[in-house]
Amino acid sequence: MTPLSPTERTRIRRLPERGSVSREALYRILDEGRICHLGVTIDGTPRVIPTAYGRAGDTLYLHGSTGAVSMRGATADVCVTVTLLDGLVLARSLMHHSMNYRSALIFGTPRTVTDRAEKLAGLRAIVENLVPGRWDEAREPSAKELAATAVLALSLAEASVKTRQGPPNDDEADLALDAWAGVVPVRTVLGDPSPDPLLRPGTPLPAALSGA
Amino acid sequence: MTPLSPTERTRIRRLPERGSVSREALYRILDEGRICHLGVTIDGTPRVIPTAYGRAGDTLYLHGSTGAVSMRGATADVCVTVTLLDGLVLARSLMHHSMNYRSALIFGTPRTVTDRAEKLAGLRAIVENLVPGRWDEAREPSAKELAATAVLALSLAEASVKTRQGPPNDDEADLALDAWAGVVPVRTVLGDPSPDPLLRPGTPLPAALSGA
Repeated sequence: MTPLSPTERTRIRRLPERGSVSREALYRILDEGRICHLGVTIDGTPRVIPTAYGRAGDTLYLHGSTGAVSMRGATADVCVTVTLLDGLVLARSLMHHSMNYRSALIFGTPRTVTDRAEKLAGLRAIVENLVPGRWDEAREPSAKELAATAVLALSLAEASVKTRQGPPNDDEADLALDAWAGVVPVRTVLGDPSPDPLLRPGTPLPAALSGA
Repeated sequence: MTPLSPTERTRIRRLPERGSVSREALYRILDEGRICHLGVTIDGTPRVIPTAYGRAGDTLYLHGSTGAVSMRGATADVCVTVTLLDGLVLARSLMHHSMNYRSALIFGTPRTVTDRAEKLAGLRAIVENLVPGRWDEAREPSAKELAATAVLALSLAEASVKTRQGPPNDDEADLALDAWAGVVPVRTVLGDPSPDPLLRPGTPLPAALSGA
């Protein structure tokens, strides 16, 4: 698999030891995350919008209403960031407090998907990133729904990965201090599914949620 | 408390019923979140950087190395977004799949904090947002550490809040379909603290983690 090649925008300047050029690491972050933060420029100022996404091969798909400001802003250069928080890092000194995380930044100009088959493939990637297997369980998009939805494709060619893992990095001189030091793991967990009040009794859970 | 007053940038255009003008709602989102996504413009293109933050009154504080690109980019217009994911929304139709979330967008030009007392107050807000009570438990910043750290203050004057909660909004005609519909709650949980391998045996846990 082609490694990530640093460009002027993706080169890790601060703490380069936290950078990774592994494309597999990029894929793992994108496939584990559910929300990305889409950065666009609107009227000359940045805007950062949380939104769903999905990956298919080396392409990231985004969607939105055809009328949304974010979709219009996303036809120029964008930055899409996915961040997974893994832990709170408590050090003996205040300034060495940190977080353990894995993050991916993707740069590029998204392409508006017009081909119907690719549009469906992009939407499938987005839905499947929410709940695997869901695409085949729910009603497919109508022509009207498809027309009202913009699907954008962003190449993963220009991307960077940055992670921090492990214990705090206290100064040698601080190791004798009384303060506790270590990591508090942070996890994202799913709770028990809560059925729609209008759900017909007896409707089985989606396969991905029932452990089937 | 002053409500949030919509500006051209903060007016909720898409699904305005999801908007809130409650400043308390803004504070709750910021106080529950741990990571924000800072959007800056660098060399004309957007960049979205995950980073820690803290709130003190009506000011959001950010910090970073004085040499970081993000800190230099943050002396112009920025957008800071905090997103809390609350649930996966499964509908009977694919296009009504969604997520329950609470998000806050803050716009403005950060001010570089030069006053020592405010710099410490800003750093305290950031550390306390990570682990409440931690400021008084660990070694305070040295003059050298303070000099190497940029602290930015961003007013919460121009902000918007957008949330989605509740069950899916399926079309009437889809209610008879067989597909399961409902919400899968998503929560962020802390695991058991993992001590630094170099921790002196017997060092007590921070108050916030020990339930003390």
